[in-house]
Amino acid sequence: MAFEEKTLRRQDIFDGQIFKVVVDDVELPNNLGQAKRELIFHRGAVAVLAVTPDRKIVIVKQYRKAIEAISYEIPAGKLEIGEDGLELEAAARELEEETAYTGNLSFLYEFYTAIGFCNEKIKLYLATDLEKVANPKPQDVDEVIDVLELSYKECMDLVAQGKLVDAKTLIALQYYALHLGGDQ
Amino acid sequence: MAFEEKTLRRQDIFDGQIFKVVVDDVELPNNLGQAKRELIFHRGAVAVLAVTPDRKIVIVKQYRKAIEAISYEIPAGKLEIGEDGLELEAAARELEEETAYTGNLSFLYEFYTAIGFCNEKIKLYLATDLEKVANPKPQDVDEVIDVLELSYKECMDLVAQGKLVDAKTLIALQYYALHLGGDQ
Repeated sequence: MAFEEKTLRRQDIFDGQIFKVVVDDVELPNNLGQAKRELIFHRGAVAVLAVTPDRKIVIVKQYRKAIEAISYEIPAGKLEIGEDGLELEAAARELEEETAYTGNLSFLYEFYTAIGFCNEKIKLYLATDLEKVANPKPQDVDEVIDVLELSYKECMDLVAQGKLVDAKTLIALQYYALHLGGDQ
Repeated sequence: MAFEEKTLRRQDIFDGQIFKVVVDDVELPNNLGQAKRELIFHRGAVAVLAVTPDRKIVIVKQYRKAIEAISYEIPAGKLEIGEDGLELEAAARELEEETAYTGNLSFLYEFYTAIGFCNEKIKLYLATDLEKVANPKPQDVDEVIDVLELSYKECMDLVAQGKLVDAKTLIALQYYALHLGGDQ
């Protein structure tokens, strides 16, 4: 059985600061004919499960326009132009900008967030041995955030309340429970 | 500290079969001025962690045009028009269409996949007591899929090989490890 879809035509719809949108006409495998694929192209992002010496998880509270609600998430940010291959450095930058922490970063997972229509890939890192920076890199000018340090249980309470609804943060919390002792 | 961003203007960019694209001009809180928000609106989706009586996980192998690669994922699908509030039924339909299984479904989590720019929300269900249907609902005509039944360890081998790179599937696998005994 063949799986690959060949691109016959590509229509460019939108070229934004955050993502591009195209519509491809594809030839389906196995003589199934043609189909349209609406696609989002994104540079990718990094996210950080930052754990304090007293085993709290660093959580960023911020407004998300896409859902018109406040969201609780681990620190994260888009890759900038030219940062392909520099995800570790990008993760350290986002951690410092959003939380004023530096730490020892190690790679955990990478995953596509919305693989059905979008190529955004997130690289997730663990940050330990956190230390506050005296003069941290400034936040992005259009970001209003609040930084919290929560126990695993407090995070799971936010999940139960429907306030923590972000996939990358769920992955990070489950990693914590599986590998860092989620009972505390 | 205020968080909310008020919409000043909305520009409609694209109205597709899978998603809509808009660009909002927003007023930032705390007199920080204005910013642009590029947004994707999506009807939402359902996904199913289906576990067989011998504790295998049902995995769908398919081509994903957004990443131009084959991907291994739990069964999932978009909500259809009018299915808002009928996610359980949608999950049962997708499970049957993609795998020819029916089962007892229970809700696990819901999460936004790409909360920074997209409102796609996935409701994740657990399906147990699986039974094969004699005459399952037909698959979508433009989907070419292969259905596998893999142990947790086989799934994690695919993760290690970089072949299982889908966020919703990682969340489901971690749930399995935490609550259904991932050592087997």
